[in-house]
Amino acid sequence: MSGEGIRTISIAGTGNVAFNLAPALYKAGFEIRCILGRNPENTAELASMVQARPVRTVDEIDADTELLILALPDQVIPGFSLSIKNAGMFNGIMAHTSGSQSLGAITQHHAGGGVFYPLQSFTKLTRPEFSGVPICIEGATPLISSSLVMVAKALSGDVRLIDTGQRALIHLAAVFASNFSNYMYSVADCLLAKSTVDPDILLPLIRETAMRIHGGDAANLQTGPAVRRDWSTIDMHLSMLRNNPDIREIYKTISELIVKLKDTGGAC
Amino acid sequence: MSGEGIRTISIAGTGNVAFNLAPALYKAGFEIRCILGRNPENTAELASMVQARPVRTVDEIDADTELLILALPDQVIPGFSLSIKNAGMFNGIMAHTSGSQSLGAITQHHAGGGVFYPLQSFTKLTRPEFSGVPICIEGATPLISSSLVMVAKALSGDVRLIDTGQRALIHLAAVFASNFSNYMYSVADCLLAKSTVDPDILLPLIRETAMRIHGGDAANLQTGPAVRRDWSTIDMHLSMLRNNPDIREIYKTISELIVKLKDTGGAC
Repeated sequence: MSGEGIRTISIAGTGNVAFNLAPALYKAGFEIRCILGRNPENTAELASMVQARPVRTVDEIDADTELLILALPDQVIPGFSLSIKNAGMFNGIMAHTSGSQSLGAITQHHAGGGVFYPLQSFTKLTRPEFSGVPICIEGATPLISSSLVMVAKALSGDVRLIDTGQRALIHLAAVFASNFSNYMYSVADCLLAKSTVDPDILLPLIRETAMRIHGGDAANLQTGPAVRRDWSTIDMHLSMLRNNPDIREIYKTISELIVKLKDTGGAC
Repeated sequence: MSGEGIRTISIAGTGNVAFNLAPALYKAGFEIRCILGRNPENTAELASMVQARPVRTVDEIDADTELLILALPDQVIPGFSLSIKNAGMFNGIMAHTSGSQSLGAITQHHAGGGVFYPLQSFTKLTRPEFSGVPICIEGATPLISSSLVMVAKALSGDVRLIDTGQRALIHLAAVFASNFSNYMYSVADCLLAKSTVDPDILLPLIRETAMRIHGGDAANLQTGPAVRRDWSTIDMHLSMLRNNPDIREIYKTISELIVKLKDTGGAC
């Protein structure tokens, strides 16, 4: 197992995280040895972007790669870690990128385990700059932690040591902060799509709402009919949603929770 | 009633909209005649910011102000319009700034009615630039519409003629896009506030999620466990929320709706 100063990295996975992380690591000067994926086209595409060798099985991964990053779906991480153990030749650090899997998902089969969790929402279409992305690091040993921190610092100015429990909570919070807010945007889009109004009209509002919050003050910045207890507007909106029972129900539920927010001073 | 080329404006109200709109109009070169408010301190404060006269009653408003903007709570707009009629001396254009009130809320009592609705979320603490804020205009006559459009164009590069029905729909969509997404941020804050993790860790994620959408494509950009049908993560999150029944319930409901989003191709 190598110590600090990792220079060679292989990546398992060809999903949204891999397609963002591999090019960022390559650009930061790391040598990307192998890209492992089941889909030959995606694997070849990503491998060629980072001058790596596309491989299809665990046995083909360079045994002397210092760091193997598992950018894989949560549920396959423990099994992958087992298959690495069974292949019996990989001796480097193996780190997953999952918010919700424990460090133990790797260390149960491979002592040199770690977590390299970039807290950002990636799609293949959108490539946010890594420099501002918080990267949460956990290592099975202090040496592994510090090795992973050094890799992370080559990508981002915001690197933090975060344990499995904290990471699970961050991931849960991120579902609200990103996935659920994006769902709210998609409801808004959909409502306007039924009219002649261009959904782009909402973009300055959405961006201002996201840009103005800082340091846990979202509750203080809450605006809208519910926080004003403007029941007549709320009733009008519920009536406009009468043909849309699902959306009507969440409008009602969230409005009630926003009213409570003001009473209790916190959302949970 | 004056035609195009409005130069003098009075404003009724000293809330978040008035505290953002009055300084923007003043800065754009309009003469602000009166600020009307019930709270003497707020009224004096805002009036002094824009070199206007603070007034407390409808009778004190300059009768020859060309435009009177009602930046007032929705429910008081019809009554205010009636009190202007009863005072009997105001002859200019009177426009409200509400997303949900009809043009008729004014024109039922005052023929020179209009709507001047800036689609943005304002607080006294946050003063977004007006230049990018969409301003939705409606006028009782084409002359009023064009007069209000000219005022709006002095503030913003995005001015649109929007009728009462479209405006109500935009306002409803805005509640989802801004108020409900902000509520999701406040839940995320609250979950992290119970740990040692600084809620600021979520800001790059929140901002990327808001900045990357364009033109009604939020549904296509949906990420997270629900859109991946990652039931084991969803079950883990529900179990982490077991002591928080309200938040647990909206997690469940929104996750189910995100699953549907992918099935149906749209949120509503």
